Amino acid sequence: MRTVARVAADTTQRDYKILDPPGLTALLASLATRVRLGGVPSDWRVREVGDGNLNLVFLVDGPAGSVCVKQALPYVRAAGPSWPMTLERAFFENAYYSTVAPHVGARIPEIFHYDPALYCTVMECLSGHIILRQGLIAGRRYPHVARDLGEFVARACFWTSSFALSCEAKMEAERLFAANHALTRISVDLIFGDPYRLSERNRHTSPQLDSLAAEMRADSALKVAVARMGMKFMTQSEALLHGDLHSGSVMVTPEDSRVIDPEFALYGPIGFDLGAFFGNLLLSWFAQPGHATSQDDRIAQQEWLWQQAVEFWNTFHVTFLGLWSASCEGDAYPKGLWSTAQDFVALQAARNAYLEGTFADMLGFAACKMIRRILGFAHVQDFESIPDPARRAHCETGALTLARHVLTHPRQFPSLNALRDALTRRGE
Amino acid sequence: MRTVARVAADTTQRDYKILDPPGLTALLASLATRVRLGGVPSDWRVREVGDGNLNLVFLVDGPAGSVCVKQALPYVRAAGPSWPMTLERAFFENAYYSTVAPHVGARIPEIFHYDPALYCTVMECLSGHIILRQGLIAGRRYPHVARDLGEFVARACFWTSSFALSCEAKMEAERLFAANHALTRISVDLIFGDPYRLSERNRHTSPQLDSLAAEMRADSALKVAVARMGMKFMTQSEALLHGDLHSGSVMVTPEDSRVIDPEFALYGPIGFDLGAFFGNLLLSWFAQPGHATSQDDRIAQQEWLWQQAVEFWNTFHVTFLGLWSASCEGDAYPKGLWSTAQDFVALQAARNAYLEGTFADMLGFAACKMIRRILGFAHVQDFESIPDPARRAHCETGALTLARHVLTHPRQFPSLNALRDALTRRGE
Repeated sequence: MRTVARVAADTTQRDYKILDPPGLTALLASLATRVRLGGVPSDWRVREVGDGNLNLVFLVDGPAGSVCVKQALPYVRAAGPSWPMTLERAFFENAYYSTVAPHVGARIPEIFHYDPALYCTVMECLSGHIILRQGLIAGRRYPHVARDLGEFVARACFWTSSFALSCEAKMEAERLFAANHALTRISVDLIFGDPYRLSERNRHTSPQLDSLAAEMRADSALKVAVARMGMKFMTQSEALLHGDLHSGSVMVTPEDSRVIDPEFALYGPIGFDLGAFFGNLLLSWFAQPGHATSQDDRIAQQEWLWQQAVEFWNTFHVTFLGLWSASCEGDAYPKGLWSTAQDFVALQAARNAYLEGTFADMLGFAACKMIRRILGFAHVQDFESIPDPARRAHCETGALTLARHVLTHPRQFPSLNALRDALTRRGE
Repeated sequence: MRTVARVAADTTQRDYKILDPPGLTALLASLATRVRLGGVPSDWRVREVGDGNLNLVFLVDGPAGSVCVKQALPYVRAAGPSWPMTLERAFFENAYYSTVAPHVGARIPEIFHYDPALYCTVMECLSGHIILRQGLIAGRRYPHVARDLGEFVARACFWTSSFALSCEAKMEAERLFAANHALTRISVDLIFGDPYRLSERNRHTSPQLDSLAAEMRADSALKVAVARMGMKFMTQSEALLHGDLHSGSVMVTPEDSRVIDPEFALYGPIGFDLGAFFGNLLLSWFAQPGHATSQDDRIAQQEWLWQQAVEFWNTFHVTFLGLWSASCEGDAYPKGLWSTAQDFVALQAARNAYLEGTFADMLGFAACKMIRRILGFAHVQDFESIPDPARRAHCETGALTLARHVLTHPRQFPSLNALRDALTRRGE
């Protein structure tokens, strides 16, 4: 029996080296992209600015402009060389960008160059942009981001799904991204496993959350609900997902929004990407009281955050439905079947039913992601930056309690209004 | 962006030729397998016995024993060279056999040799076995087949699912079978598309079924239900499926059952394989009155067939649950999460809920497959062998009417008893 060639098989890692400023300068000097920087290499200023969990990120400024260079490290940066990590994630990041670029317009950075030997990407420098999460912690508002992200998820998912693709094209895309084992493993373990068992990788605000964490590890109904979402994550191959679409994967200005860091890209349930962004808006909502000052109680910011969650879902919903109604080139609900007015009424009801399922998935995945960011390995600055542990724990308890309730009582949340009611009660 | 190597890439089709008896004899003479035949090549008797839609099948008898050789043709045999078909299906058939062989015991033929250039497989000759469908048409009974097939589906699916495999192993298996485009295209079109639109590939007993076929093409609720099952087929990647598990893919003696022809193998919903076999038992049920004689009204055979459908599902259910309870090495519902008695009660409830979903999928896919075998391209001998068109149409109408009702009113069929009631009413 022949084996499928691994995606990685046509490159070796012999030529890989961790970039330093001189090495990066030499690389850029060899590329056509150097015209974007202008001048000569000695004019260029290189800064390493990475603050994520996995990579080196350099900003390079020249007389004519700047570029950003992201390089995969052979280990999880946040854990150090003791947690090795395949470099191939840079390949999948680039593959995701290439796949969605025709559909999402300027919602992703422009890619200038991908180097398969160095596992690095030279891309547009988003000057003036900051990480959305940092802006939300600072209490800032971005009037376009919810709508931009709702449209982004709708477009990226619709155009990579069976609604838009032939079964052959979708299977070929699935084959490519199904090689992204290593980062899928991280999601499987850190989202759907670790927070619900004792693990050295877990941490939480202690001792304040000790008893709640123990209670949740012993909550059979919660664990079954999370395992069901994990199963869905591993089996429901609806669309190409970003795979890690939290507020740290979005860069913003008041006018612009860009999605970055799609190295977790895989085929999966659309609700997983929706839930990542939605859940991180809720985490920010719960963290706001922790950032309150005598000048700003953050209540208006909480209200604004809730409106963004609503706007995000509603924009996704209307955009996805619009694409589906306008285009039926894929093999799902294929266009040859519908001709009469009655057909279109039934089809519209089916679309609405489908999106009700997507809504339920969004809430379930959002809840899983909220829990893992408080009890698991990778935490969020929204809470981490609250210095007083008691105050932090209070905020975190609200988020955990809501997430647990959403997972164990999904039928109580058929709509955003139901969630709003629960959120208001929990937040009090 | 690199592209994934096609599975086919490491063989060319330059060396392919359609086997004839001399060519086949020469091939076998070059293989170690020749000892199974005994004697010298001039002693061997070669017969071409293929009666399926897609392949050549030879039986070769020698002084010491026999082998069966199956070769893919570069076109759909039932349609002729005007409908070309990739030879790669032989590769996927062999890959399926290899993958499930460790788990399903003697339920598949023993494979002696696979020739990647000729796209042919030399395998155990099932002497004394006949195609189950032929036996059922003749009114014969096979006391083990329902149990054998229920166990087969449970084992083949469980051991290739996320319940048994790590996410990495499952993704790698998915990558391999996601290259099986050509046969997946056939399923997508012939099961979920053509029967519900005008297509040159369709045929039905005419004029008797003309109005019902037209009515079903205009039934919006039915088309939406079928499209939903098609979407599930294309997105719900639960386990490795045989992909075409009807009663023509099972060979039987009164003591033995073997599953053959897995060239449609793909990752998909478990209910698809269950529904294929279950639906074909129901087709046989509906066809029985067409084969009634003055000596045998076939009512007892119908009752026996219904009992086989029950036995098939019940065996699948108990076997799958047993495997899941005994083994939790996969990433779905991972073993590290469950320790208390309360955990196991909740987990058992989750398992039952999961299998309720599988049951609903089985009925939905069974109904799709029943319809396509009466209104679509590929028909079944159960009906085709009823010479009187009026009588045949009467049997077919019963099957179509039940299948349509199952698809448009799924909630009326939570159990086999509910189906039994409907079946009895329809059959009258």
